[in-house]
Amino acid sequence: MSCGMSDDLTREQIYDVPAGYQPLPWHRGFGRQVGPLFEKRDENGLTRAFRVGEHHTNGMMNAHGGMVMTFADMAWGAAVEKDEDTWWVTIRLVCDFLSGARHGSWVEGRGEVLSVIDNIYTVEGRIWSGDKTLMTGTGIFKIIEKRV
Amino acid sequence: MSCGMSDDLTREQIYDVPAGYQPLPWHRGFGRQVGPLFEKRDENGLTRAFRVGEHHTNGMMNAHGGMVMTFADMAWGAAVEKDEDTWWVTIRLVCDFLSGARHGSWVEGRGEVLSVIDNIYTVEGRIWSGDKTLMTGTGIFKIIEKRV
Repeated sequence: MSCGMSDDLTREQIYDVPAGYQPLPWHRGFGRQVGPLFEKRDENGLTRAFRVGEHHTNGMMNAHGGMVMTFADMAWGAAVEKDEDTWWVTIRLVCDFLSGARHGSWVEGRGEVLSVIDNIYTVEGRIWSGDKTLMTGTGIFKIIEKRV
Repeated sequence: MSCGMSDDLTREQIYDVPAGYQPLPWHRGFGRQVGPLFEKRDENGLTRAFRVGEHHTNGMMNAHGGMVMTFADMAWGAAVEKDEDTWWVTIRLVCDFLSGARHGSWVEGRGEVLSVIDNIYTVEGRIWSGDKTLMTGTGIFKIIEKRV
């Protein structure tokens, strides 16, 4: 019996996840609704990703702009996280849409912290698929006290 | 037999939809995934709305920032629609997060076209719940040829 491994294999087969990526354990709320999302940590820092599914698409069968912005919030905001217990809120997000991601594309995103003043982080972000840049932008995020 | 009417009553009871709002018939893709959304047309123009459900929430049980931006794209972008056959893409969205919307809140949004140059529309937008402004921002949208 290896139900867990069997589930993992099935999930990877379905989403065709590149090496190094692990699924994010978001099992409730909007994070689950727009998932699954994945992340990896390497020498470039923390990169998040998702495979464009039917439930992410607009009428042109590209990733919907709302999904790309949602992913920007999640991928760029992650740059401010010191650990899993860091809570942050988004103050401003500026998103420039450069090109579309087709249904089935593997989309990746990462942010880089440009400045920190008090608990306000300015993050420069990029989202891409293969060698095509989909979105660039800037996020302003604030670290907050964790509320239980 | 009145199954249709019975379904409508059930839907309105579940989502507690204010008078004048009709559900948007988005039955596929990301529009369905983040729905249901509603809209009304009156002397103020086109207003869109949604009730914050569990599937819209972040870890603080507020509407997730990604959902609010997704809704901004849908509510502000609607200001450029002449009819249901108008297709548009988002070029840039600037979102300022002012306050959160609790689980169960009725959230409304509307955009106003500030300028049109060729097919590029600049829209000033607002999202609110009751008398609380949740987000202000600017959207740059472009009308495109409908692709079949």
